Amino acid sequence: MAALQDVIDKIQQLDTAAMDAAQKRQAQLAKPPGSLGRLERLSIQLAGITGKVHNQIDTTHLLVFAADNGVVEEGVSSSPMSVTLQQTINLTRAKTGASVLCQYFGCGITVCDVGVNAIITEKAVLNRKISYGTQNIVKGPAMTREQAVRAILAGADLAMNTSADAIGIGEMGIGNTTTSSAVLAVLLDADIEAVTGRGGGITDAAFQKKKQVIRQAIAVNQPCKTDAVDVLSKVGGYDIAAMCGAYLGAAATHRPVVIDGFISAVAALCACQLCPLVRDYLIPSHASYEIGYKLAMNALALEPIFLLGMRLGEGSGCPLAFQVLKASCAILNNMATFDEAGINDDYLEEIRRGDSFTVKEQAASWEN
Amino acid sequence: MAALQDVIDKIQQLDTAAMDAAQKRQAQLAKPPGSLGRLERLSIQLAGITGKVHNQIDTTHLLVFAADNGVVEEGVSSSPMSVTLQQTINLTRAKTGASVLCQYFGCGITVCDVGVNAIITEKAVLNRKISYGTQNIVKGPAMTREQAVRAILAGADLAMNTSADAIGIGEMGIGNTTTSSAVLAVLLDADIEAVTGRGGGITDAAFQKKKQVIRQAIAVNQPCKTDAVDVLSKVGGYDIAAMCGAYLGAAATHRPVVIDGFISAVAALCACQLCPLVRDYLIPSHASYEIGYKLAMNALALEPIFLLGMRLGEGSGCPLAFQVLKASCAILNNMATFDEAGINDDYLEEIRRGDSFTVKEQAASWEN
Repeated sequence: MAALQDVIDKIQQLDTAAMDAAQKRQAQLAKPPGSLGRLERLSIQLAGITGKVHNQIDTTHLLVFAADNGVVEEGVSSSPMSVTLQQTINLTRAKTGASVLCQYFGCGITVCDVGVNAIITEKAVLNRKISYGTQNIVKGPAMTREQAVRAILAGADLAMNTSADAIGIGEMGIGNTTTSSAVLAVLLDADIEAVTGRGGGITDAAFQKKKQVIRQAIAVNQPCKTDAVDVLSKVGGYDIAAMCGAYLGAAATHRPVVIDGFISAVAALCACQLCPLVRDYLIPSHASYEIGYKLAMNALALEPIFLLGMRLGEGSGCPLAFQVLKASCAILNNMATFDEAGINDDYLEEIRRGDSFTVKEQAASWEN
Repeated sequence: MAALQDVIDKIQQLDTAAMDAAQKRQAQLAKPPGSLGRLERLSIQLAGITGKVHNQIDTTHLLVFAADNGVVEEGVSSSPMSVTLQQTINLTRAKTGASVLCQYFGCGITVCDVGVNAIITEKAVLNRKISYGTQNIVKGPAMTREQAVRAILAGADLAMNTSADAIGIGEMGIGNTTTSSAVLAVLLDADIEAVTGRGGGITDAAFQKKKQVIRQAIAVNQPCKTDAVDVLSKVGGYDIAAMCGAYLGAAATHRPVVIDGFISAVAALCACQLCPLVRDYLIPSHASYEIGYKLAMNALALEPIFLLGMRLGEGSGCPLAFQVLKASCAILNNMATFDEAGINDDYLEEIRRGDSFTVKEQAASWEN
């Protein structure tokens, strides 16, 4: 497996020549300039990513990274830790939110265990386990720096070896809104109140506890905000680290990569700190209901595509975002240019305004 | 063809028993309550529309109503009137924005001439022509009241006779952002500045002219704000009137009906004035870039699903919204309930926190 710097070194700037050509093509299409908005811009971004003007998103794949978080013992989650294992397995059976949508839309899905707190015998779950869950971040670092790097590389390796035209990044890990909020607070030097939401849905008391836990975890671990690996290892989780790596791996192999919700956005921010070029490979999906999502997206200078009020995670926003990507390709590839849109003069027997009249005869023909 | 009141009388309240059952089903699905946001609410709305808890959106259909507007002679548009005819025909050939997306996503499309200023010999265009375009609204009413009713009924009839699980409403008509802004200004008693945008993209001078034209049209015609038919006939167009009717027709036949952008939203508002029950059958799609869109949606108490910065019209937002509707059905139909999500104890050999350790052996197995 390649070392982290090798992966980062593979990530290139977008192909500006291809983008210029795609931009030119969009300007030739028979529509008011810019009237298809982000469908146009996505097609131009795709050209930059692949180096080709005409693209097709025939195959799409969701990577879901599953891991447990030691901090759950603090009572910060609405679900017990065992739900991570349960839903990790259900994700492989098209029974959960994201996997149902993948099945429906024909997206591939790989569920990857990077740190679930159980021996998973289910063959459909890819084993990339680093550990049986992280340590409790209130008491010390979640993992060692070496473990964080291994998780990042596990994600990068999986993304690089996933053959699809577009990749989505999801997660399953009870407690991971707590770790994501902690990572985001450190990276952006943000107030805990501004980055912490109720995750799956917790009581007022648990919500106060969650914020206290995040403050304490940062105070205890003192992560270095300019070193994403340090931040991930101290207050993050295996899931977020692997997701961060998957963004790097997708960009390194010239594929667009879709952000799901809050946790996915925080992982993307980590990837961009490791390699700012990654940002141009990112495709947003839905606006997560989690409060920190907007901060993370602002930091990435990205805007969501969907307003669906979702906060499930798992990568559930990715299958829908893939449809928008596909639409952007169809527009660039299949719309007529102004030249092609010209209608043969046989059809252009335009009636002068002065001749305008009500054609009772014609109208009557379909009333009977 | 049924009279207008007959269509309105067919429109029923949503089936609350089916909605309650769908709500109950959503609460049983293995996810934090409400975590799939609008995908959940859409599935409940669909249940109310069809009267069935489990729905599938297998077939979708876009209805595009094409018509010309006499007011174009005032210089309010970026394109000449002949573009209506050109694009009406191109819509039937999968060459325009909306028709490319319909073809890509397998949506049906019907392009219906209700007032194009030309004799259309193209067989693929459905002939429901009321007139060869409206009169110039600056000088007098766009059409007679009888013509407005006929256009509404043409739309209703087409929607009622379109066999699809969901229907989308689009338009093609140079000058129809001007008429839509005028209709909206009257219905909402809104300031012209607040409802008027640049449409396809006009110069500053043409933009000032457009607003002046709208003011003048309202002053000359004095439409009655509580009578949508009067408003449509005086400052609207055949396209908006037929679209209004199509919303009525879709609701009358218990189908969800998707709003595209600004013009489509104004037509929906007209339909809701004629029959407030229509509102519960509406599905938003993208947030149009046109300034008046937001006012129309606020008046409908609806929020868009997509943020795509689009302003093409034609119904271009509908094919994507259909994918979201399909997703909402897949979630309700295919996700596991909490009972079904329970994993056999064989898998639940959860490791206690105290036993947590790094499994170098396991991790090593995939590094080679």
